[in-house]
Amino acid sequence: MTKHNQSGVQALLWTGHSLKVLDQRQLPEQMVYDDYVDAAGIAEAIKSMRVRGAPAIGIAAAYGVVLSVNRHFLSSNGHWKDTVLADIELLANSRPTAVNLFWALNRMKAVLEHVNSNPIADVQACAEAIHAGDIVANYTMAELGADLLANAKGILTHCNTGALATGGYGTALGVIRSAHARKPVNIYAGETRPWLQGQRLTVWELGQDEIPVTLIADSAAAWLMKSGAIDWVIVGADRIALNGDTANKIGTYSLAVLAKQHNVNMMVVAPTSTIDGTIKSGNEIEIEQRQQSELLPACYKDNPYIKAWNPVFDVTPAELITAIVTEKGVVLEPVKNGVNELLII
Amino acid sequence: MTKHNQSGVQALLWTGHSLKVLDQRQLPEQMVYDDYVDAAGIAEAIKSMRVRGAPAIGIAAAYGVVLSVNRHFLSSNGHWKDTVLADIELLANSRPTAVNLFWALNRMKAVLEHVNSNPIADVQACAEAIHAGDIVANYTMAELGADLLANAKGILTHCNTGALATGGYGTALGVIRSAHARKPVNIYAGETRPWLQGQRLTVWELGQDEIPVTLIADSAAAWLMKSGAIDWVIVGADRIALNGDTANKIGTYSLAVLAKQHNVNMMVVAPTSTIDGTIKSGNEIEIEQRQQSELLPACYKDNPYIKAWNPVFDVTPAELITAIVTEKGVVLEPVKNGVNELLII
Repeated sequence: MTKHNQSGVQALLWTGHSLKVLDQRQLPEQMVYDDYVDAAGIAEAIKSMRVRGAPAIGIAAAYGVVLSVNRHFLSSNGHWKDTVLADIELLANSRPTAVNLFWALNRMKAVLEHVNSNPIADVQACAEAIHAGDIVANYTMAELGADLLANAKGILTHCNTGALATGGYGTALGVIRSAHARKPVNIYAGETRPWLQGQRLTVWELGQDEIPVTLIADSAAAWLMKSGAIDWVIVGADRIALNGDTANKIGTYSLAVLAKQHNVNMMVVAPTSTIDGTIKSGNEIEIEQRQQSELLPACYKDNPYIKAWNPVFDVTPAELITAIVTEKGVVLEPVKNGVNELLII
Repeated sequence: MTKHNQSGVQALLWTGHSLKVLDQRQLPEQMVYDDYVDAAGIAEAIKSMRVRGAPAIGIAAAYGVVLSVNRHFLSSNGHWKDTVLADIELLANSRPTAVNLFWALNRMKAVLEHVNSNPIADVQACAEAIHAGDIVANYTMAELGADLLANAKGILTHCNTGALATGGYGTALGVIRSAHARKPVNIYAGETRPWLQGQRLTVWELGQDEIPVTLIADSAAAWLMKSGAIDWVIVGADRIALNGDTANKIGTYSLAVLAKQHNVNMMVVAPTSTIDGTIKSGNEIEIEQRQQSELLPACYKDNPYIKAWNPVFDVTPAELITAIVTEKGVVLEPVKNGVNELLII
């Protein structure tokens, strides 16, 4: 069992009456926490990507529901539940791809349905359980994933799946932390355009924790694989279909195709809250398109000939995935049976 | 025969006594020409990437030799040739990967070797011939390449291979211009990290010429291919080995592997001056590593745990290339016979 040195950085700090959200748009230059006291603020923090990463989005949304209940239960005229449900709808509409958001909101809704008297303690307990449960899940996944990496020389990761993207520690980055704690391994991070989560968040987070990391341009990954430097690509997930198809940050599908061609293994690490039990395959996943301005300099604004195509997720078919690691266990070769067994456990 | 609308923009303007170099680092925000009057300045302009693109580097270096001769023939004490040869050495050391640089310098050296009296007119004529020859080669390649694209729906290009990278018009982008002039086709450009030649130069150049273009993140190329939107990837080259292996901007190898997996064709467009007749395969090509600061934000400078790996070229094996298009003709399936025949013609 690895000792888990929890990363010093936390994306979300619950104060009991507000949620402090680390504005990840300002990293690595500065660490600024914004204090949110209502659900609308949390929805905006998710939409604007102050907070991002599928598990962290779910946790933030759960606290958003707590803030809504806190505000409306005492002050409203008996219709507080309708107001809270409207806030839940607002939170659900903040971003479309990560399923953890809807999973967390459904858990909060279930609490509301069964509560009779003052709901404040129950909803807060549920949000805190979602948060704490995510950290425990991270530790479990980290161990299970690291078990697969006994002989790894080099690992490439994409986007940010660390403490900043979760309740703490990380999914893919949690596995990498634990593997590195057992035996040093070369860690590479892709920049992850257009938002540069790898450059701005992942290498910063590892640097803070004194774990050596090498940044590469996303387009250099194939050349790195050809050099023989890596034997695993390890990524998180925003939504996993029942057949194992996995939506994750744009570029993941590219890495999976390249990994297959270079005999590099591909690991997806995500809590089971990322599995969407309602969809059979990745074809049913809605892919978020973000603003063209994330790719285009402002000076192109008035040129009608210049456009951008900015899907921020893609879907990796199960056949390209070596292992899916969750807190409930590992599925090797998910293409054979999908991830159904994880929902039964 | 397509009418060639030469792009309005020119990377290099020869005045007769100086070379005006468009500072491409400042595009697309502003167009600034720097005026160079000696070879050291030209070497610095190449090293600092004010001018880039294999053919443009070769042309700039040739004018650098003219400036050196202009300066030293009259003023030096009879040893002007040694001084000019030292300047040629300086120019040769500006960047290592593009072979057009050495090819152009060798042509200039050959003139110097055969000149007896005042060399100024001869060296200037040679540099101007290299410049003019490049434009003619571009037009020829554009036609030959466009002939292969009769049924193309969509084309993805990488880096900048347009007027900015050449004497004018472009290599890969010349083919795309001509194909588009014959029949409109959807043009996609990859951003091309870390220097963003695609975002800053290619879409700007096409936008100036009123040709519609869609920018994508480099890591979105696989997802674009999966969507069925493109049937060709078209790129330039910095050096081609005799077996057809091609060094080009980092990310080209990645696109070639992905193209193969998605039944997308891969075209390399380059003048024969890009062929290095001294090397049998791509293994012999020196790959330039540039500063880590091109990838890392300044605030990481003092963190000893954070590094970057920044190879700015990679090598695509001939087996992944559908066609190599030069001004002397097209080699289909270069993996079968390499590019030897182009050197014989």
